[in-house]
Amino acid sequence: MNKKDIEELFERLFPICRSITGDGLRKSLDIIGEHIELFRYEVPSGTKVFDWVVPDEWNIKGAYIKKNEEKVVDFKENNLHVMSYSEPVDKVVGWEELEKHLHVGESSHFYDRGVPYRTSYYKRDWAFCVSYKQYEKLKEDNFASLYKVKIDSTLKPGYLSYGVTKLEGESDKNFLFSSYLCHPSMANNELSGPILMMLLYDYLSHRNNKINYHFYLGPETIGALCYLQKALCYLQNRIDSFKNYLVGGLVLTQCADRRQPLSYKETKRDSYVNKMMEYLSKREYGNMLRRLPFKSTGSDERQWNSPNVNIPVGVFGRDVYCENQEYHTSADNLQFVDVDRLLECFELLKDFIFILENDTTYRTDIVGEPFYSKYELMSDSSTDEYKEILGYVFQGSNGKESLLDIAINCPYNFRGIAATAKVMKEKGIIY
Amino acid sequence: MNKKDIEELFERLFPICRSITGDGLRKSLDIIGEHIELFRYEVPSGTKVFDWVVPDEWNIKGAYIKKNEEKVVDFKENNLHVMSYSEPVDKVVGWEELEKHLHVGESSHFYDRGVPYRTSYYKRDWAFCVSYKQYEKLKEDNFASLYKVKIDSTLKPGYLSYGVTKLEGESDKNFLFSSYLCHPSMANNELSGPILMMLLYDYLSHRNNKINYHFYLGPETIGALCYLQKALCYLQNRIDSFKNYLVGGLVLTQCADRRQPLSYKETKRDSYVNKMMEYLSKREYGNMLRRLPFKSTGSDERQWNSPNVNIPVGVFGRDVYCENQEYHTSADNLQFVDVDRLLECFELLKDFIFILENDTTYRTDIVGEPFYSKYELMSDSSTDEYKEILGYVFQGSNGKESLLDIAINCPYNFRGIAATAKVMKEKGIIY
Amino acid sequence: MNKKDIEELFERLFPICRSITGDGLRKSLDIIGEHIELFRYEVPSGTKVFDWVVPDEWNIKGAYIKKNEEKVVDFKENNLHVMSYSEPVDKVVGWEELEKHLHVGESSHFYDRGVPYRTSYYKRDWAFCVSYKQYEKLKEDNFASLYKVKIDSTLKPGYLSYGVTKLEGESDKNFLFSSYLCHPSMANNELSGPILMMLLYDYLSHRNNKINYHFYLGPETIGALCYLQKALCYLQNRIDSFKNYLVGGLVLTQCADRRQPLSYKETKRDSYVNKMMEYLSKREYGNMLRRLPFKSTGSDERQWNSPNVNIPVGVFGRDVYCENQEYHTSADNLQFVDVDRLLECFELLKDFIFILENDTTYRTDIVGEPFYSKYELMSDSSTDEYKEILGYVFQGSNGKESLLDIAINCPYNFRGIAATAKVMKEKGIIY
Repeated sequence: MNKKDIEELFERLFPICRSITGDGLRKSLDIIGEHIELFRYEVPSGTKVFDWVVPDEWNIKGAYIKKNEEKVVDFKENNLHVMSYSEPVDKVVGWEELEKHLHVGESSHFYDRGVPYRTSYYKRDWAFCVSYKQYEKLKEDNFASLYKVKIDSTLKPGYLSYGVTKLEGESDKNFLFSSYLCHPSMANNELSGPILMMLLYDYLSHRNNKINYHFYLGPETIGALCYLQKALCYLQNRIDSFKNYLVGGLVLTQCADRRQPLSYKETKRDSYVNKMMEYLSKREYGNMLRRLPFKSTGSDERQWNSPNVNIPVGVFGRDVYCENQEYHTSADNLQFVDVDRLLECFELLKDFIFILENDTTYRTDIVGEPFYSKYELMSDSSTDEYKEILGYVFQGSNGKESLLDIAINCPYNFRGIAATAKVMKEKGIIY
Repeated sequence: MNKKDIEELFERLFPICRSITGDGLRKSLDIIGEHIELFRYEVPSGTKVFDWVVPDEWNIKGAYIKKNEEKVVDFKENNLHVMSYSEPVDKVVGWEELEKHLHVGESSHFYDRGVPYRTSYYKRDWAFCVSYKQYEKLKEDNFASLYKVKIDSTLKPGYLSYGVTKLEGESDKNFLFSSYLCHPSMANNELSGPILMMLLYDYLSHRNNKINYHFYLGPETIGALCYLQKALCYLQNRIDSFKNYLVGGLVLTQCADRRQPLSYKETKRDSYVNKMMEYLSKREYGNMLRRLPFKSTGSDERQWNSPNVNIPVGVFGRDVYCENQEYHTSADNLQFVDVDRLLECFELLKDFIFILENDTTYRTDIVGEPFYSKYELMSDSSTDEYKEILGYVFQGSNGKESLLDIAINCPYNFRGIAATAKVMKEKGIIY
Repeated sequence: MNKKDIEELFERLFPICRSITGDGLRKSLDIIGEHIELFRYEVPSGTKVFDWVVPDEWNIKGAYIKKNEEKVVDFKENNLHVMSYSEPVDKVVGWEELEKHLHVGESSHFYDRGVPYRTSYYKRDWAFCVSYKQYEKLKEDNFASLYKVKIDSTLKPGYLSYGVTKLEGESDKNFLFSSYLCHPSMANNELSGPILMMLLYDYLSHRNNKINYHFYLGPETIGALCYLQKALCYLQNRIDSFKNYLVGGLVLTQCADRRQPLSYKETKRDSYVNKMMEYLSKREYGNMLRRLPFKSTGSDERQWNSPNVNIPVGVFGRDVYCENQEYHTSADNLQFVDVDRLLECFELLKDFIFILENDTTYRTDIVGEPFYSKYELMSDSSTDEYKEILGYVFQGSNGKESLLDIAINCPYNFRGIAATAKVMKEKGIIY
């Protein structure tokens, strides 16, 4: 997939009105499904999911506010204008009632945050979200005005949709990539995550891997819990198996903004995923990759890291702490994202996967050092660096330390260490 | 007890001539006993206490040095003038002999340290302690002078007195507050410690506590060992029980001086007490609370931390390392202490006790995150901070980390964490 | 041995042409053997030593390059002129062929590195090593010149020689000092190491020791492996026994250069040897003693630390990382070394041995503190420092922490701690 393909994907996905259920979500999964072979699950409304219940399905055809016959707010112009999961409404109201059902974007001399994004999944209500300017226009002469409000939505038993897939690897180790697809027209949060996942799937599906890669894509929180419950059934409800089954994972989110550096939010406690990212940050990416501590709010990492699930899943992207002022507003649009910056995330993930795939713990049966000359590993033209790497790999082949540990404890990078270890294994020095 | 009550207590206790045994000690315990329900123990002279033996009881009525019929030094003016445990003496001596029995306060152009405080509990001797000025006066024309020295003391088999008490809590955890009461007229060291203990007892006895609080008050070292031996008998000499029985303790000493910040001397090795104080210092008190490493000299923490006792007891107060130049001199008087600064110590101890009482380790049976809306824990008006705290408490409810660990690993303070955990427990989310 | 003796030793050993086998090595072992009672081992060529095979024995009588009848390069002048293990050669060659068999010293406007030191132990070849000036002289008019090259060497089955010895101590703990003796005329690397070992042997053989000290001296790498294989036989091939048998060791090398501070290269992983050196560096020697991390290239520490041997052996000397530009050149001569700087190494090793010999873990049966007066350990004239040391030793006598741990955790040095512990043990306070 080239840059143009990615831009087209952003353009196709952006206008769709997604929510945690409904046809917008299905249509988005269809489009992503052209690139990732996703298995679709449809969970009926009312299904108990751990502490939660799958809500009714929501769909919407249109909505507007007319003030004295003029359409001041129209869903057609921006699907953020309707609070997600708004009940249908069709009536004429005065200002006093309307104002109770308005969410207004912040505005100041310096910045207008546009239309805010709001939801009310679990409490029946209806509301419009408007920019500050629209609010002023609505408010003008409000005592003398009547407002026709119409939301043409449905809210009734249906299904919650999500997609999962797996790329089989040679070993029995599993790794999870997760992203979410329940936000209406916003580009960085959330289209950048699913699109990065597609790039990753494309990359991994054309290689032979050691690790089994799992991909989850669906509505945030409730969808992630549905997937988790399904996975638990598969593992006969032994949650410990689930934990041992997965070495870790990454939530991919907000990967394409123009402002933040590469960012990694750590797993809840020390983990192998943190260790890999620490290595990449300290030794290869420097300031380009921030590491931020675990925070209790965020995306689906909250579910994966929760006390009885306990899978070490970090968050990778750029604005993983929701620092941008465009976050959850109409300003998070196609102009805000930059495909080059998304591709930077992809590059780092390739390095991450390189470590995940190649990190191994070796042993040796040789007592003392090997007689390297015998193995044709060294010649007169071997550099001192090469001799040192050979030495570091050999000295670390004690059945305890992995190649990543060796790289962390010496001045050479993981790729050089791994390449050397591969040759040494072929020569029978380590195994 | 208000500030005036505390000042009166200082005034009543200050003039009494205390030592490690005797009527001054008993009278002081009586006064403290008006506020703390102390159980008095009287240990006979000659009792073997681990490696020690309880010495004879010492009492004193008066003492003076007359030079040519003029009383240059008089016990009535300051009871520090007689070295504690001085034998009775009544004779006329020349300068040469007198000088061998004089302890003289240091003096310079910049400072006069007044009368020094000296003891000779275990080696029979007699001595006077004088200021440098008194020394000069005594020395003047010393070849032509005779000195009448009189110490009207008794030193014979009697008893060593100490007081202990306990406030019962709901759990089986125990905590020790210890202070000492064997110094004559000095105010910071030592009256501030016992008075702080009274404030604490008053505070704790009007509440329902989880922890059992033990209070020890008596002579330093030998008294503490008597108490320890009694406690060991009670526990059928299984010293490990004693260790497990007590989660830790604090020696209260030198709490009212005008010069030093709040100070904490650490327990011998890592301990829960150190962890609480580290949290308070780093996160709530900042520079106002110093943490100083364990030192092998000091007060009764030496006994509590000793190799076969091994109870993690730190020292809390201000000048816990004896840094003030007033230390062990007549300059440590009622003018040197400041009740407001004693009350600052009391305030910190309340925060300390809050943690001790409320720190708990929780678990949850919920898989994934709770559906918070169901528990009416979150509303539209909930702040982001509140949501984050809920999340941190839930994520830490893994049966291993306590609320203090959660507070240490997140940006919110223990009180907010504990209040939120309480509500979550009531709602049945954690247990 | 005084300074003059040491200088004479340098002078006697320097001219000998050593290699990893041969008569130069034997003669050098003989001279060292006048001071250390070395047991000589002779391992036949062809013997399999773990992953290696003992090579043929090499000896050399002379060598030269004549250009147009003028001897431009002569082995008599400097035995570095012949690459170690050069095959015999005796022919006339043109410049093109000669140049393939020349190793030329680096040279610049700022520095002339003299004659380089080169070896080819395991690949049959011949070569001369020359300074840049000699190279220029040889090259001049090279098209018009013929070169007579003669190397009068032998390379045939024989023996590899090494020497070992042991000083018996009272305990069953063992420590290894190792150095190597296979380099021709270079003074810092390597004569300084074996000579320091002699000083150490002399020092230790005139004392009663607790530790058993082992000394290995022979060719680098292959000799160390021969010794290791012998030791393994002795331990019935149970390599774990070997590991438990030795608490650690030091390779002594490059101890007399005029440029570097005292230097310690750490063992591969955390070890007691590292801990001692860290203490000495941080608390007693400061900047005078550098600690450098383990590196996979170096001397025999590579063998001792290798995965299946795993004995924590560090490297001690000055230039333990081969930083000097004189390293492996004719500039590493008798002028480059300074006996005073060698003696500084010796002084540090005495401090190191003091810790090794005196570090003990004590216990006590006393509950609470001892009644020090009873043991006549304290008097009126005891300093506060002395009281504190007594306290630190007593508080640390818990059967877990050693005297070195106590010193690390308090402000007093190991020697004071150890002296006090000795008295306390005699008094029966600790055992």
